[in-house]
Amino acid sequence: MKYVIIFFILLSYHANAQTPARYNHVTNDVQLIHSQILNQDRYVYIHVPKIDSNQVNKPLDVLYLLDGENHFHIVSAYVEYLRHWGVIPPVIVVGILSADRVKDLTPTNSLIDFDGNVDSRYKTSGGNEQFLNFVKQELMTYVEGRYKTSRFKIFAGHSFGGLTVINCMLNHPEMFDAYVAVSPSLWFDNKYVLRLAEQKLAAAAITGKKLFYSVGNEDGTFRNDVLEFNKLFRHRSLRDFEHMYKDYPFESHMTEPIPAYYDALRFVYKTWAPETTK
Amino acid sequence: MKYVIIFFILLSYHANAQTPARYNHVTNDVQLIHSQILNQDRYVYIHVPKIDSNQVNKPLDVLYLLDGENHFHIVSAYVEYLRHWGVIPPVIVVGILSADRVKDLTPTNSLIDFDGNVDSRYKTSGGNEQFLNFVKQELMTYVEGRYKTSRFKIFAGHSFGGLTVINCMLNHPEMFDAYVAVSPSLWFDNKYVLRLAEQKLAAAAITGKKLFYSVGNEDGTFRNDVLEFNKLFRHRSLRDFEHMYKDYPFESHMTEPIPAYYDALRFVYKTWAPETTK
Repeated sequence: MKYVIIFFILLSYHANAQTPARYNHVTNDVQLIHSQILNQDRYVYIHVPKIDSNQVNKPLDVLYLLDGENHFHIVSAYVEYLRHWGVIPPVIVVGILSADRVKDLTPTNSLIDFDGNVDSRYKTSGGNEQFLNFVKQELMTYVEGRYKTSRFKIFAGHSFGGLTVINCMLNHPEMFDAYVAVSPSLWFDNKYVLRLAEQKLAAAAITGKKLFYSVGNEDGTFRNDVLEFNKLFRHRSLRDFEHMYKDYPFESHMTEPIPAYYDALRFVYKTWAPETTK
Repeated sequence: MKYVIIFFILLSYHANAQTPARYNHVTNDVQLIHSQILNQDRYVYIHVPKIDSNQVNKPLDVLYLLDGENHFHIVSAYVEYLRHWGVIPPVIVVGILSADRVKDLTPTNSLIDFDGNVDSRYKTSGGNEQFLNFVKQELMTYVEGRYKTSRFKIFAGHSFGGLTVINCMLNHPEMFDAYVAVSPSLWFDNKYVLRLAEQKLAAAAITGKKLFYSVGNEDGTFRNDVLEFNKLFRHRSLRDFEHMYKDYPFESHMTEPIPAYYDALRFVYKTWAPETTK
């Protein structure tokens, strides 16, 4: 421990001689991408980490984050801080801004809301497959064409975004290496994705992946669906599949992402260690 | 709970019509202040929250944050997100960038390091009183002259910064309303500030304040000093003094600030509730 403290004291001391802005990553580009698949323009926030000059040619992992307008800023701040202190590698963060999130982030068309009532605000639901096609064929191509990326990709989302992450893992496990689902809305359409998980995870076709999922203080039904999902991992022996479930009883649906995205990053890079330079 | 989720769905849905950058607070100004007291130029990062038009004349609380180059980005992201979701009020964040942090953030001149050895890198130590004068007479004047500020002020720091926060609370309790000390280096100079706390807190002259303090996985001596500090609150009856102690056994000295600053913000604004508009 003492070495860390001494390193910290000296590092900050010597920072005096450097430009003060060096550590204030405002590299939060807003970029506009035209999607033929969605037939619309989509905005993304992109955070590109600072790289030491001796690592400039190293390919970078990419974290694709849903609801970018909500969570990009905190997640990119985590990623930059943790990279700076050698806890995780440099990671590009792509925050996808929402357009019609009911459409993009739900797997099926269902007008039934959380309370079981018909709600016309869900009329566009069911566009998840098309949205994932956009991510795979257009967004990933865009990002990988502009930055030197590694093979390791993370997909992270909250609420309907968490539902999307799990739906993607079940239907297109090859798309990402790590999946982060913060309070996934598994209740949607009579637990459609939860039932899908029961089928797909039984087949144990999903290997070599990491999955983080969590729940906050949401009430009965919402919470129970996540607990049911969690049971699937207790009873099956998924080979080479790492998962972490975390419960945040003191966090609301909207504050939970703050600790959960941090814990998820630590989970995904649990075994990562910086290369020793020789 | 369901109301929060529905509100979230609709809010994000309607966000489509707005400019995408509205939620990406890049209002992280770097400002240069000349200090006559310190006889040097000092950089600060300033985050000014977005304000609803009907609240534009409302005075804002200010959070003064030490080691700005390290923690400003995460803390300002927390503050903006929590404000947006109505968990805390809008808060201005002033991140003070370090110059000679050994000098500014230690109360006395001592060359003895954490292991008890003489270390010349501590030769400038002991400038805390002068630094606090700068904060009070120059920095606060600067901030309060440029922004419409409320009376409520928070002082937050980590490591030597945490030591500074506690030293400030003991010697100048009138300067701030809430104090946040993440892993304070109470070991410094034969536990000088810990001994000061024993004297000052016994006098119970410090009332109407809030104090958050914490420790991570630092080893024996470092940790024990924080535990000793914590005991002072168990045995004394400080009136109108709210304090919270938190232990992060799975966080290192450098990762602890991530959860600790979040928990500290929640603690400071625990009883805050948004005004209902009529």
